[in-house]
Amino acid sequence: MITTTNIQELCKLIRKDILESTFYAKSGHPTTCLSSVELVTVLFLKYLVFEPENYPQIYHDEFILSKGHAAPLLYSIYKKVGIINEDLKTLRKLGSLLEGHPSVKLNGVKYATGSLGQGLSIAVGAAWARKYHKIDSKVYVLIGDGEFAEGSNFEALNIAYKYNLNNLCLIIDVNRLGQSEETLFKHNLDEYVKRLDAFGWEYVVIDGHNIEEIEGAYQKFINGVNKPFAIVAKTFKGKGVSFLENKENWHGKPLQTLDELNKAIQELNIQNEEVSVNVSYRRYPYSNSVQNKLIPVEVEYKEMATRQAVAKAITKVGKYINNLVVLDADVKNSTYTEYFEKEYGDRFIQCHIAEQVMTGMALGLAKNGFIVYLSTFGAFFTRAFDFVRMMMYSKPPLVIFVGTHAGVSIGEDGPSQMALEDLAMFSSLIESTVLYPSDSVSAQKLLINVINQHLQGKLNGIVYFRTSRPSTSILYDINEEFEIGKVKVLRKSENDEIAILSNGVPLFEVIKAYNKLKDEGINVRVIDVYSIKPLDEDYLVRALDGIKKVLIFEEHSLYGGMGQIVSSLLLKKGNVLDYFEIIAIDKIPLSAPANDLLNYHNMDYFSIYNKVKQVV
Amino acid sequence: MITTTNIQELCKLIRKDILESTFYAKSGHPTTCLSSVELVTVLFLKYLVFEPENYPQIYHDEFILSKGHAAPLLYSIYKKVGIINEDLKTLRKLGSLLEGHPSVKLNGVKYATGSLGQGLSIAVGAAWARKYHKIDSKVYVLIGDGEFAEGSNFEALNIAYKYNLNNLCLIIDVNRLGQSEETLFKHNLDEYVKRLDAFGWEYVVIDGHNIEEIEGAYQKFINGVNKPFAIVAKTFKGKGVSFLENKENWHGKPLQTLDELNKAIQELNIQNEEVSVNVSYRRYPYSNSVQNKLIPVEVEYKEMATRQAVAKAITKVGKYINNLVVLDADVKNSTYTEYFEKEYGDRFIQCHIAEQVMTGMALGLAKNGFIVYLSTFGAFFTRAFDFVRMMMYSKPPLVIFVGTHAGVSIGEDGPSQMALEDLAMFSSLIESTVLYPSDSVSAQKLLINVINQHLQGKLNGIVYFRTSRPSTSILYDINEEFEIGKVKVLRKSENDEIAILSNGVPLFEVIKAYNKLKDEGINVRVIDVYSIKPLDEDYLVRALDGIKKVLIFEEHSLYGGMGQIVSSLLLKKGNVLDYFEIIAIDKIPLSAPANDLLNYHNMDYFSIYNKVKQVV
Repeated sequence: MITTTNIQELCKLIRKDILESTFYAKSGHPTTCLSSVELVTVLFLKYLVFEPENYPQIYHDEFILSKGHAAPLLYSIYKKVGIINEDLKTLRKLGSLLEGHPSVKLNGVKYATGSLGQGLSIAVGAAWARKYHKIDSKVYVLIGDGEFAEGSNFEALNIAYKYNLNNLCLIIDVNRLGQSEETLFKHNLDEYVKRLDAFGWEYVVIDGHNIEEIEGAYQKFINGVNKPFAIVAKTFKGKGVSFLENKENWHGKPLQTLDELNKAIQELNIQNEEVSVNVSYRRYPYSNSVQNKLIPVEVEYKEMATRQAVAKAITKVGKYINNLVVLDADVKNSTYTEYFEKEYGDRFIQCHIAEQVMTGMALGLAKNGFIVYLSTFGAFFTRAFDFVRMMMYSKPPLVIFVGTHAGVSIGEDGPSQMALEDLAMFSSLIESTVLYPSDSVSAQKLLINVINQHLQGKLNGIVYFRTSRPSTSILYDINEEFEIGKVKVLRKSENDEIAILSNGVPLFEVIKAYNKLKDEGINVRVIDVYSIKPLDEDYLVRALDGIKKVLIFEEHSLYGGMGQIVSSLLLKKGNVLDYFEIIAIDKIPLSAPANDLLNYHNMDYFSIYNKVKQVV
Repeated sequence: MITTTNIQELCKLIRKDILESTFYAKSGHPTTCLSSVELVTVLFLKYLVFEPENYPQIYHDEFILSKGHAAPLLYSIYKKVGIINEDLKTLRKLGSLLEGHPSVKLNGVKYATGSLGQGLSIAVGAAWARKYHKIDSKVYVLIGDGEFAEGSNFEALNIAYKYNLNNLCLIIDVNRLGQSEETLFKHNLDEYVKRLDAFGWEYVVIDGHNIEEIEGAYQKFINGVNKPFAIVAKTFKGKGVSFLENKENWHGKPLQTLDELNKAIQELNIQNEEVSVNVSYRRYPYSNSVQNKLIPVEVEYKEMATRQAVAKAITKVGKYINNLVVLDADVKNSTYTEYFEKEYGDRFIQCHIAEQVMTGMALGLAKNGFIVYLSTFGAFFTRAFDFVRMMMYSKPPLVIFVGTHAGVSIGEDGPSQMALEDLAMFSSLIESTVLYPSDSVSAQKLLINVINQHLQGKLNGIVYFRTSRPSTSILYDINEEFEIGKVKVLRKSENDEIAILSNGVPLFEVIKAYNKLKDEGINVRVIDVYSIKPLDEDYLVRALDGIKKVLIFEEHSLYGGMGQIVSSLLLKKGNVLDYFEIIAIDKIPLSAPANDLLNYHNMDYFSIYNKVKQVV
């Protein structure tokens, strides 16, 4: 039996851990931790169904710390309940797994947090996964009141309501103080309540330091609710230490002197240095029914847009992989994920026009047993860049982002709908794979390749596919293989005077120019750069064997695109060129038919032809 | 006197324009336009206070079309009221200013829209600007029900409420149908009402096709409200044409045949092909009090962090420029914009942790007479990438983004707080300036330089400053000048064996290594790349005169950083190098003291020293 006195005593010890670990780290956010101590301790001691080993699995309840800067609290409770055994005094030291914000290298940490306003979206994915598998485990997510200002939370509130995720418990720690001043709503709990109510959630309002009120709140949730559930907890930042509690200017600051530390610990009035923690570890029944057979590489040998080709391929994959899920932001008829929805509607998630919750959910799903495919216009993934960046740090098994409508060849819809910065964005992630197939064959094969490589343990994490709007002709034989990291030499002769590297729609203009130039006796090597990252520099250099002039045509910003990546590889490899130029999108595009725009940006076949004539 | 009959007849003509212009363009979103016809027509004919010339200025009411794909409706009403005189049948044709989504090249278009969910945030900025100047003009923004799912709207609802922007009228066109399926809330208007109410707004619910109800709604707003005001309008997509109205699968599709077009126009039952439009054009009284004196270049000659130096400089600028406004997302004590707040609190906007509304507001402010400075951790601008991208298309006069906490040198807080992709992001914008000062002198001077250049009409648009967390020593004399686009050769001799390009905190490690190497008789050229974009390639090549070996050290992702940009310039200029290597952040950083992390990423002085020894 865990008594209230036991919990209170344990909370004191956790407070001590927080104060000490941040004091010795000389940095950190102790006051942020102190406001959440009771909320987290009661949960772990009395309600969370879990086992310390391999926590958290889908057959456990899981707790997500959205306010990642409260990591020292997480570490302390993890240690108390046996999830970790690290020395808390190594916090924030080189080599320690106790990072300033939770890192997935540490046992029990499934999601890297620290950019605020993301935990709830992740939790929605984690809760959806449990519902899908009809498993009774629950998802708890703790957010701070400061981060409640992030719009992503409201996207997540909507989707949780839509999917009736009554296995989801949101805990809002309303401690009144943001980093630099009071939060928007201060201690006006009613502002939170009004919003939760409007978004269709159930909720309770409690004193977040009162053990019995906290117990009542969790008990209510566990007894069963009809909607997603929120606990609005009034707390005090710095709770438990008189000179920290509810005081401004203490955000992100540890105690400064040993005297301060001793004074603070004294105030905790610890009665018992060794509170026994009797947690009954258990799990929910769950049988994993994931099938992991390799996908047969069957492709439809038909001219179509690459956006359509990858969607066809993923729909085919759906037949073989029952843990594949596809997410949309109300563009399924443009990305063609409607194909998948039609076949596997129960594994298709409509997030509506809300790319942040879509990306957060993708992570929650990926970390709960799903292979995830999410697709929208490449331009609109910029909406979720912070979520994508943070997802990388969580090291998801496999999340495939498919960005459609790359570049100016989308035509009349104009620049707002054109992905022009997507390669820069996805490549800049330290760990990512970026692919850009130009025809239907390579698109389908690369998609299946990615999944098969993942199933064989060779590829993980974030994979970005850049795809085009217009239908493009077929470049490859049905038996061609596409290795990630390589390029394809499409046209080659013994006496090539120049090489052109390209991909996407401009590549087809390059081939047209090639034909015209060939007729005039000018030989051009044409290279399809379908793998942007990785890109094997030695292979690339061999593909350019004997070449002294290089042109690059790409419908992406000059900055961060394929051309600059190739530049750095060639310069590094010491390639000496007589001529090198990147023709990219370096002025703001217009709204006009695709061919007019390719011409406007000097990447239609005639401009390419002229450029080659001028250079050779 | 404008009668209801007149309005109804005009609405028919506008519907005809929409159907015809999209038919001849062979693309576009007529059905999206048709649901909003009455809402927009009544506003422009009876309520909007404006003059067609130079519309919209701050002394006009302004109308923002957030659902940018309804551009044909905008063009039609603009033509009817005399704002434009284009031929509507040039819609979406090369060279036409009537783009698929509104472009600022067209008269009367102040903001490029087309990525959904941004208009309200922009409107909040525009309304705030009017309040600040105590001018009675109003801001109207029309959003679609589909885009109401974007979380950014809720950030904006909060901030409008916080600043009590009762000069702001939000019109929600609830036409039930998204692009690919029904919206989240379909025609359940109550879902909108509940949310608006919870966020503290006033509202009315109307039939969005009923002229009198629309008039009543606008009249209520104009009579004076106490809070920001919303009109929730039930409408039908495709309204007015039987085979389009309220039908699925008509999103983004024009009529397909001339027969269809004729049938649709016939159904409109046009009584009068020439409805006279009697709009009483007028403006609100307003005297522009902007002072535009150049800023004296006085800098504080003191060692400090660059994040602090730019904040000091902008606070100094505040004294000279009374139309300067500073925005924060609850990190003012880290970005030091608290200095500005202390001096000019009435020109400081606290957006709390909501980077999207902050960026949207920045655009609304910049387009209404303000020079804007907004600052947060560089990592967190990723949250607003879509807003930044779209802002570029609106061509704002001057918006200075200051990203702090660049790279691994922030230390213990770990990767979630490190800007590692910010150079890739801001450089990838087709039109942007990206600066990265390394010491306090260059930081202050560059900031003042940017403003003075803007005041002289030489620099516009988006300027990104990358700044560091740690205090760094002074590199430059107080009289040093910093031209945008140049580099600074910090160390040079007659017989340099290698050049190192760097910036930020690693640059100081480079200088330490330089000293040690010099003692050993190895001469290194050290170059400070403070201007990432533009970067004068000829100047760069001259700075590398005689150099055959180049090393780059930067605390940014390898992809999209300074190194790849430099690569492309050197390759283009035909620089032949014996050795070239970029040392960047190519593995996920840890959480540890800054020096430990610089060492972990091979950019502490000893690693640099070793690398040079190995290469020369």
